[in-house]
Amino acid sequence: MLERYSDPRDLKKYSLHELKQLAGDIRQKILQTVSANGGHLASSLGAVELTIALHAVLDTPQDKLIWDVGHQAYAHKILTGRLAKISTLRQYNGVSGFPKREESIYDTLTVGHASTSVSAAVGIARARDIQKENFAVVSVVGDGSFSGGLIFEALNNAQNLRKFVIILNDNGMSIGKPVGTLAKMITKLRLSNIYRGLKKQTEFMLGLLPAIGRPLRLAVDKLINRTGGIIIRELAKRQKAGFFQDLGFTYFGPLDGHNISLLAAALKYAKDFDRPVLLHVLTKKGKGYTPAEKEPSRFHGVSGFALETGDLRQGERSYTGVFGEELLKQAAGDKKICAVTAAMAEGTGLSAFAEKYPKRFFDVGIAEEHAVTFSAGLAAGGLKPVTAIYSTFLQRAYDQIIHDAALQKLPLFLAVDRAGLVGADGPTHHGVFDLSFLRTVPGLILAAPKDANELKDLIKFGLSCSRLFALRYPRGKALFWDAERDARDVELGKGEIVYGQADAEIAVWAIGAMVAQSVKAAKQTGRNICVVNARFAAPLDKELLQTTTKKAKKLCTVEENSRRGGFGAAVAEALTELKISVPHIICGVPDNFVGQGAVEQLYQDCGLDVETLAKLFDA
Amino acid sequence: MLERYSDPRDLKKYSLHELKQLAGDIRQKILQTVSANGGHLASSLGAVELTIALHAVLDTPQDKLIWDVGHQAYAHKILTGRLAKISTLRQYNGVSGFPKREESIYDTLTVGHASTSVSAAVGIARARDIQKENFAVVSVVGDGSFSGGLIFEALNNAQNLRKFVIILNDNGMSIGKPVGTLAKMITKLRLSNIYRGLKKQTEFMLGLLPAIGRPLRLAVDKLINRTGGIIIRELAKRQKAGFFQDLGFTYFGPLDGHNISLLAAALKYAKDFDRPVLLHVLTKKGKGYTPAEKEPSRFHGVSGFALETGDLRQGERSYTGVFGEELLKQAAGDKKICAVTAAMAEGTGLSAFAEKYPKRFFDVGIAEEHAVTFSAGLAAGGLKPVTAIYSTFLQRAYDQIIHDAALQKLPLFLAVDRAGLVGADGPTHHGVFDLSFLRTVPGLILAAPKDANELKDLIKFGLSCSRLFALRYPRGKALFWDAERDARDVELGKGEIVYGQADAEIAVWAIGAMVAQSVKAAKQTGRNICVVNARFAAPLDKELLQTTTKKAKKLCTVEENSRRGGFGAAVAEALTELKISVPHIICGVPDNFVGQGAVEQLYQDCGLDVETLAKLFDA
Repeated sequence: MLERYSDPRDLKKYSLHELKQLAGDIRQKILQTVSANGGHLASSLGAVELTIALHAVLDTPQDKLIWDVGHQAYAHKILTGRLAKISTLRQYNGVSGFPKREESIYDTLTVGHASTSVSAAVGIARARDIQKENFAVVSVVGDGSFSGGLIFEALNNAQNLRKFVIILNDNGMSIGKPVGTLAKMITKLRLSNIYRGLKKQTEFMLGLLPAIGRPLRLAVDKLINRTGGIIIRELAKRQKAGFFQDLGFTYFGPLDGHNISLLAAALKYAKDFDRPVLLHVLTKKGKGYTPAEKEPSRFHGVSGFALETGDLRQGERSYTGVFGEELLKQAAGDKKICAVTAAMAEGTGLSAFAEKYPKRFFDVGIAEEHAVTFSAGLAAGGLKPVTAIYSTFLQRAYDQIIHDAALQKLPLFLAVDRAGLVGADGPTHHGVFDLSFLRTVPGLILAAPKDANELKDLIKFGLSCSRLFALRYPRGKALFWDAERDARDVELGKGEIVYGQADAEIAVWAIGAMVAQSVKAAKQTGRNICVVNARFAAPLDKELLQTTTKKAKKLCTVEENSRRGGFGAAVAEALTELKISVPHIICGVPDNFVGQGAVEQLYQDCGLDVETLAKLFDA
Repeated sequence: MLERYSDPRDLKKYSLHELKQLAGDIRQKILQTVSANGGHLASSLGAVELTIALHAVLDTPQDKLIWDVGHQAYAHKILTGRLAKISTLRQYNGVSGFPKREESIYDTLTVGHASTSVSAAVGIARARDIQKENFAVVSVVGDGSFSGGLIFEALNNAQNLRKFVIILNDNGMSIGKPVGTLAKMITKLRLSNIYRGLKKQTEFMLGLLPAIGRPLRLAVDKLINRTGGIIIRELAKRQKAGFFQDLGFTYFGPLDGHNISLLAAALKYAKDFDRPVLLHVLTKKGKGYTPAEKEPSRFHGVSGFALETGDLRQGERSYTGVFGEELLKQAAGDKKICAVTAAMAEGTGLSAFAEKYPKRFFDVGIAEEHAVTFSAGLAAGGLKPVTAIYSTFLQRAYDQIIHDAALQKLPLFLAVDRAGLVGADGPTHHGVFDLSFLRTVPGLILAAPKDANELKDLIKFGLSCSRLFALRYPRGKALFWDAERDARDVELGKGEIVYGQADAEIAVWAIGAMVAQSVKAAKQTGRNICVVNARFAAPLDKELLQTTTKKAKKLCTVEENSRRGGFGAAVAEALTELKISVPHIICGVPDNFVGQGAVEQLYQDCGLDVETLAKLFDA
C-alpha cells in the first residue's frame, strides 16, 4: 500500500481494508527505520491507526493538526511526503525526529518539549475565528503531557472554541509510568467502561459500517448523518469527567485507538462540534512489535536495536549513569538526600535510587516548574533535594530557580543533565543555554566537570556546600580522565591547570567536555599553551585567570554553550573587572539553532571540533 | 485591642468579640499605612478575618502558613511581630510588601510571583512526612492564582497528603476580573449555595458557639468535638467540585470569609484531615473601606490615597501609558494587531485597547507561559500579537520564547514592561534579568528606548519587522527627550550618539533609561565624553562600537540590568569579536538581589546614580 500511496488525499479514497493494510506497512517502515537510526519507537507504533484516521478525516493541511512533543509522529511523517527520506530520520541534515515547521506544511508546530500543543492550538483557533476562517484545529496529546502546567493554562483558556479537538492519546504511560492524581483520574476513565462497553461499541459501529471495499470516509459520513452522532454522544454520556468538564470540554470516550473506523467516526463528529472536545483514545505503546509491547519504557527512545530479537543497542557508560551511581552512594550515608525528577527517572539515571529509596524519591511528572519549587519546599523542610532535569527542560524553571530557590537562599542541588549538544534529537533538545541563564541567578554556584571522576567530586561538593548549586554534564559516554585517581574535595570557585604552564603564551580556558577537547587541540598545535579546567562558571577563579593571562598573548575560552552570555562572557566580564587586557576569543555554540546529527558532526558546525580549535589556538 | 496584642498565642485566648474588635483595629492600621506608603490594599483588607482565624487556630510558626503572591498578607505581618515597624512598609530597609523568609519565622516562603505556594507546600509536607513530624501545612491562594500552571502541577502532586489545606480565597477577582473556564467553575461553586445555604449555615454555627466572652478557640474545639465535624462535612457534600475532586482534594465550602467563628471551625476541622483539603472561602476585596469595596481593581495596588475621600494619588504619565496609547493608534490602521496580557490589562496599559478592540484583546489570566505559546499560535495563524508582560514575570516564559517562538521563526512582539528597578515592590519584582536571558534567544531582536518618543518609534518598528522582537521599558514616569520631534523610522541594530563626538576620549554606551542618566553624568564631569544610545542590545551596532572606541581610552557600559550576561556582556563579547582592546567598565545591577525603596535610592545602591556614574566616567 505504501508504494502506491502519495499524499493524505489518497486516504479519503481507501477502504477500511486498504487502510488496515497501510497501517501494517507503516509499522514495518517505522520498525526498519528506528531499528537502524534509533528514535522514539513505542509511542509512534502506538499511534499508527490514529494517524491514519486523522488524515483520512481531516483536510490537512487546511485543518490544523498539532502533535504534542512529537514522539508519536513518525506515521504522520511517512504519510505527509517524507516517506522517501525517512531513512535519514534523526541523521545530519535528514528528517527531524519531531514535527518541524520548516520541513512540511503538514507540521503546524515545531515541537520537542511537552504540553505546548494546546496553547498554540488555542492561538491558531482564535486567529481563525477573528479572520472568519473555518478549519478545524486538532491537537494530539499523550496522557503524560497532561501533567505540565502549560497545558492546564491552555485548557483554561479554550472557552467556547468550536471545531477544536484535543485527542488524549492515552497509552497509560508517560515516558515511564504515569504519576499524579490526574493520571489516576484518566486511568479511572480508561477502566470505567473499557471492559464492559468498548467491545460492544466497536462491534456496533462495525456493524453499521458498510462492507469492505467502499471508501471508509464516505461510509463514515453516511453513518454520522444517519445516526446524528448519537453513538458518539452515547459514549460521552456514560462518563463523568469532572476535570475536563469543569474546564469547559465535552468529553468523548474512551475509544479503541487501534480501530480505524471507530476513530474516524468519532473524529468526524468531534471536529465539527460547536464546543471544545476532548476525545479520549486508548492506544498501546509499542503496538505491533512484541518486544516493545512488553517493555514500552525501554522502547520509548532507543539508539537502535536488532529487529529480529529486539535486542537494544548497548549504551556506553554515561555521565548520567555515573551521576546515578554516585548519588546512590552518597544517599546511603545521608538520609536527608532526596531525588526529584520530572518524568525522567530512567533518563536521569535515578531508577536505582527510586528502587532503593522510594520514600526519598519523587517523580512529579512532566512538570519542571513544580519540580524546582517543590524541591525548594523540601529544602525549606530540612532535606537535601537533588533535582535532575535535562538542560533544555530546565529552561522552563528559570523563574522558579530565581524566585523560589535563590531568593529564598535555599540549598537546592540542580543536576543539569544533557547539557551541551545532544545529537540526534536536535534543536529542541540541545542544552546550550544553561550556562547563560543559570549564571545570571544571584548566589547560584555553577559547575561542570571535565570528566566522570570530577563529576563525582562535584556531586560530593554540591551536597555539602549548603548553597544553591547547579551541576551541568553532557549526554553520552563518560570520560574518565584518570581512572585511578581517588575522589577528592573540590574547593569552591577553584579551577586547575590541566595542560602546560601558567606562563604560557596562549591561555585556553575551557569548561566541561570542552576541557579534554581543548587539551587534544593544544597538543596538536605543539605550541606553548596552558589549558585551564575552569570547573566553576560561577564563581570564576579570578586568581587563576590573572596568573594564566599574565604572559599570554591570547586567551581562548571554550564551552559547549551559546557564545552569548555564557562561560566566555563570564570570563570577558572578569577581564574587564580585573582590568586585564588580552585578546580574547570566545568559542562556543553560535547564535542560531543547531541541527541534528552526530555530536562530532555538530562540533564541526559550531567550530568546537579538535581541528578547528587547534587552528584557532595556533592562529 | 492592637495595643495590648503581642503575638499569635494571644489570639487563642481572645473571645469572638475581642477578635472582631482586633479585626477592626487591623483594618484601620492597614488603611493608615497604605494610604501613606502605597501598597496592595484591597486584597489585604479582604483577608483580615481569615488571617485572624488562621493564626487563632493554627500553631504558627510550627504549623506552616504560606501565602500565595502575598498581596493579602498585611494583617499577617501586623499579627506576627511587625506592628511596630509597619509604618516602614515598602520603604527602603523597611518592612517588605510581601512575606519574606528573612523578615520573620512566620513567613514560611518569600513570595511575590503567583501560584508558587502549593508547590512549596507540597515539598514542605513531604519533608515533614519523611521526617515523621506532625505540623499542618496551610496555603492561602487567591482565586486569581489558580490560572497559573504551576499550581495545577502542584495540585496534581499532592496525592494522599494529610494535614494539608489549601484555602481558596475567592474574592471573585484576580487583580482585575477573573478569566478562564476554571474561574467560571469557581464562580458557579460560589453562587450555587451562597444565597440558599450560606446565611443559614452561619446562623447555625453561631447558635452552637458559646456566648461572647469565652475564648473562641476553646469554643470551636468543643463544637468540633461535639458534632464530629458534621457541619463542615455537610457543607462539602452539597457541592460538586469535579475539578478539585478529580485532583484528589476534599472540597469544603464555600464559607463566609468574614465570619471568624465559622472560619475557625472549618480550619480546625480541615487542618487535621487525613487527605488534602480545599477550603473555599468567600471574601470581599476592599472589605471595610467603601471606596475600595466599590472599585477593588483600582484599589488593588495603589501609590497612596487620601483616607477621607479615597482619592488616589495621581500617577505621572508613564511608559506603560505611552505604550498603550501608541499600540491603540497602530491597531487602528492594522487589523492584524492583537494584544495579549496575563491578568495585567490595567498594569500594562491595555485597558483602552481591551475596550476598543475586545475581539483582538486576550487576557489569559496569570499564565505567562501560555501567554507566549498562545501568542505564537496567533502569529502562526497570521495575526500580529503584542504580548505585554512585566519583565520579572516573563522569566516564567523563557522556554516558551525559545521553543515556541524563536525556534518556529514566528514574529512575536514581546512588550517587556517594568524592566529595571521597580522600587517599592522590591526583589521579587525587579526586572533585572531580561537583557541577559532574552539576549541568548537565537534570532530575537532586543531593544530598549531612551525615552518615550523612541518607545513609540520602536513599537512601530516592532510591528513592521516581522521578527521575534522584545522591547523593554521601565516602570514610572515617561521621559520625553525631545517632545517636539516627530515619530521616525528606526533602523534595525542601529545606535546613535546622543552626546559628544565619536572621537571622544571616553566612550559611554548606555541603554534604556540609563542613556539620560549617563548624559547627565557626562555633562557633570565636563570631560570629553561620547554617550551612545545603543537602542538595540541585540543585534548590537558593531560599526558604531568601532567608531566610538577608536580614540577612546576607556569604555563604560551602563544598563539597568544584572551585570552578568546583559548589555555589558554583549558589548564585551563584541569587543572580543572585533578585536578591539579598550579598558571596559560594566555598570549595572550587582550580582545580588536588590531591596525595596525609591528607585533613586536603589540606583545609589547599585552605583547607577548620576554622581557615581560621573565619578566612574571621570576616574
